[in-house]
Amino acid sequence: MSRAQRIVVIGGGAAGIGAAGAAKAVDPAADIRVYTEFEDVGYSPCGIPYVHGKEIPDFERLFLATREAYAGQGIDIHYETRATGFDTARKVVSVAGEGEVGYDKLIVATGFDYADPGVPGTDLGGLYYVKNIRRAMEWDKVLDGVRQAVVVEASPLGLEMVTALCHRGIKTHLIDPGAWALSVATDPDIAGPVQDSWREKGAELHFGTTLTGFLGDGSVRAVATSDGEIACDLAVVCTKKQANTTLARAAGVKTGSADGLIVDERMHTSAPDVWAAGDCIEVPHSVTEIPVQGLSGSHAYAQGKVAGTNAAGGQRVYQPVSVPWGMVAGDWMIGGVSFSETLATALGIPHVVGVAEGISRARYYPGVEKIRVKLLADPKTLNLIGAQMVGREGIKERADFLAMAVRTGITVRELATMENVYSPPIGALNEPIALAAQNLLSGLGS
Amino acid sequence: MSRAQRIVVIGGGAAGIGAAGAAKAVDPAADIRVYTEFEDVGYSPCGIPYVHGKEIPDFERLFLATREAYAGQGIDIHYETRATGFDTARKVVSVAGEGEVGYDKLIVATGFDYADPGVPGTDLGGLYYVKNIRRAMEWDKVLDGVRQAVVVEASPLGLEMVTALCHRGIKTHLIDPGAWALSVATDPDIAGPVQDSWREKGAELHFGTTLTGFLGDGSVRAVATSDGEIACDLAVVCTKKQANTTLARAAGVKTGSADGLIVDERMHTSAPDVWAAGDCIEVPHSVTEIPVQGLSGSHAYAQGKVAGTNAAGGQRVYQPVSVPWGMVAGDWMIGGVSFSETLATALGIPHVVGVAEGISRARYYPGVEKIRVKLLADPKTLNLIGAQMVGREGIKERADFLAMAVRTGITVRELATMENVYSPPIGALNEPIALAAQNLLSGLGS
Repeated sequence: MSRAQRIVVIGGGAAGIGAAGAAKAVDPAADIRVYTEFEDVGYSPCGIPYVHGKEIPDFERLFLATREAYAGQGIDIHYETRATGFDTARKVVSVAGEGEVGYDKLIVATGFDYADPGVPGTDLGGLYYVKNIRRAMEWDKVLDGVRQAVVVEASPLGLEMVTALCHRGIKTHLIDPGAWALSVATDPDIAGPVQDSWREKGAELHFGTTLTGFLGDGSVRAVATSDGEIACDLAVVCTKKQANTTLARAAGVKTGSADGLIVDERMHTSAPDVWAAGDCIEVPHSVTEIPVQGLSGSHAYAQGKVAGTNAAGGQRVYQPVSVPWGMVAGDWMIGGVSFSETLATALGIPHVVGVAEGISRARYYPGVEKIRVKLLADPKTLNLIGAQMVGREGIKERADFLAMAVRTGITVRELATMENVYSPPIGALNEPIALAAQNLLSGLGS
Repeated sequence: MSRAQRIVVIGGGAAGIGAAGAAKAVDPAADIRVYTEFEDVGYSPCGIPYVHGKEIPDFERLFLATREAYAGQGIDIHYETRATGFDTARKVVSVAGEGEVGYDKLIVATGFDYADPGVPGTDLGGLYYVKNIRRAMEWDKVLDGVRQAVVVEASPLGLEMVTALCHRGIKTHLIDPGAWALSVATDPDIAGPVQDSWREKGAELHFGTTLTGFLGDGSVRAVATSDGEIACDLAVVCTKKQANTTLARAAGVKTGSADGLIVDERMHTSAPDVWAAGDCIEVPHSVTEIPVQGLSGSHAYAQGKVAGTNAAGGQRVYQPVSVPWGMVAGDWMIGGVSFSETLATALGIPHVVGVAEGISRARYYPGVEKIRVKLLADPKTLNLIGAQMVGREGIKERADFLAMAVRTGITVRELATMENVYSPPIGALNEPIALAAQNLLSGLGS
């Protein structure tokens, strides 16, 4: 029998670790090596804002597994070790301190970088890019002394950080060029309650406001905007997550229209024996087939598993995405899937809309809360193509449901007649999704 | 133009009121008359156990609308007025105190009766059949003096009442001929945590135990069972809900294999111009096409709307049901859709099973709880044919999702690769439904 194959993974985030584990499961004899420039793998960066917000008491809880656990699984992780390039012809990765390391299969899981704000002053201290847990631990101590912070951009992370800083008791400003929070994914009626709850917590929201610079001497003392200066001790930069494709592009791996690495349904790139997964790739949307990038940790992990399985010799395919999303923002839960009215309109995607205000439990049951549901459907097929919700509970589960509906071509006619659990403590007589679908159909006169 | 059509509805529950409202919406000129033998319509009987359990502070909250509100909508409700029969040839309803009342269209919404326990002593006092809100108000006062109660049968209502009586501080016994709670809908691994939590609250559970009589002199002092006597001040009789078809059968309307009125997809019965809806009818199951009966208030209301729409001249069809269900039982939420392993095995329905223990939020997020998910699929098509869950949150929404999956033929392959919201406070990296589907596929070696 031939020697064990070597599978090299560049990147120790959700995609890289998912890939390494899946590869080991398919080929237990494989020599699986992960390179990460950081001190840790196997933690949840998504939890960082909640430690800052004091919902989670310490950073230690964010670690999923110890170094020993990975070693015990036969996954050889090289920590604080930077891959500096790779050559797909000679099948080697260049590693700082290790030289050239040969591979049989390579998995690129190099993640994302925050978009450069592209303004003067990015070299100042006091600019926080939320990403690495060790840095987050240090920043968390800094937060104790911060009186006023500016969050730059109302991205998903931006929303989490505004909420966290408010919880932390820090005077918080949000600046964003859009007209409302998360304006790519949401419509104003969905973002509105979130914004109101932030204002109740003392946040100041500056929409339609462009960042023009970070001001200070050594450390940031103010953020300059199209609408004037905002004094601050800290700026949290929550710009768009861009695919980190530096190494792959240098090696000639192709990128696509969303600037992510192009992969097929098996997560194989344009280069032989090179797979990729996570925030560094782009994948087609299930409705438009247009590539999208910068999804969730859950997507990264699932893509990693597909890449690792296939790289090791297994067979697994990844489907086009419909991208359910959800989060706690202010005092609300918001979430949805695929297209908002705003985005569908901007992209010229034909759509019809139905909205309903439903409730989460029986009308008379303690803790009952409103849920606003908006559904978008294709005018011809009535297939669901988007949804948004704002409420206090049950948002994640509904977003997952509606994502499957988008993926499988379920129509709003089906949703209008869906059966639902009716039990006073947990569900109302009328499911809000069904009401929104019924309203959509009524609006069509059908 | 001809005179307004008269639509008579027999029954003022969810089906009857849903029908009346829908008929009025289709034909605002129609003369819509509802007969109910009770003092009220438009309240939620489903809330009664929660008032008894003190989760809801008073019965008044269970009322949805006043008498004036219905009158204002042009719905003429005759309270405390019993329809004693109808004649489909002459198109008249016989009404106590009113004589014969002509109709153009008749909607039968006569609901259910609890199955007669069929044992001696059912004429004793102290036997509580949970149904009517005025009686529930009287019984609630009685509960203040009850020290020990027996709940007869672990039906859905039985589960709610055990939970309620425990919350009320009453020593509670449950007797059921099955081997575990709700043994038609659940498997033992789902019911187990509920039973444990009841025992922690001091309940005594007597499974495999048959009721043989109610003992007492005037009022019940004990329940006689196959396993001996259980002393009690109160017996809550939670036997199966049987279709109340007395009037309709006397009028020659056909009943089916589940002893409910047979209706077509428009809720039309075998008799001309007679529609029916709610607990008095049977409807086909989406998987087996076998008629089922005794569903939820949500089903009754939806069926009523279909019946009322069609009776008034509109067009609406009702689809075969997959029957999502869910409830709070003990300290848990349980729920599911369609077939349990137990039921599928009993009915000879081929099935493959996948089970997973997932979590409701990020592993490290406060309030995270386990969710056990069991999925059943058809071995050939891998279409989902059943699900059960036990957890602490998000059960209703998942049951609704999985009911749509059963209805639309979504496979466990789709569920295994479903996208999910990952956000620490509201959703875990891996959705429990996806894990159960993945485990099912792994068990098949695929």
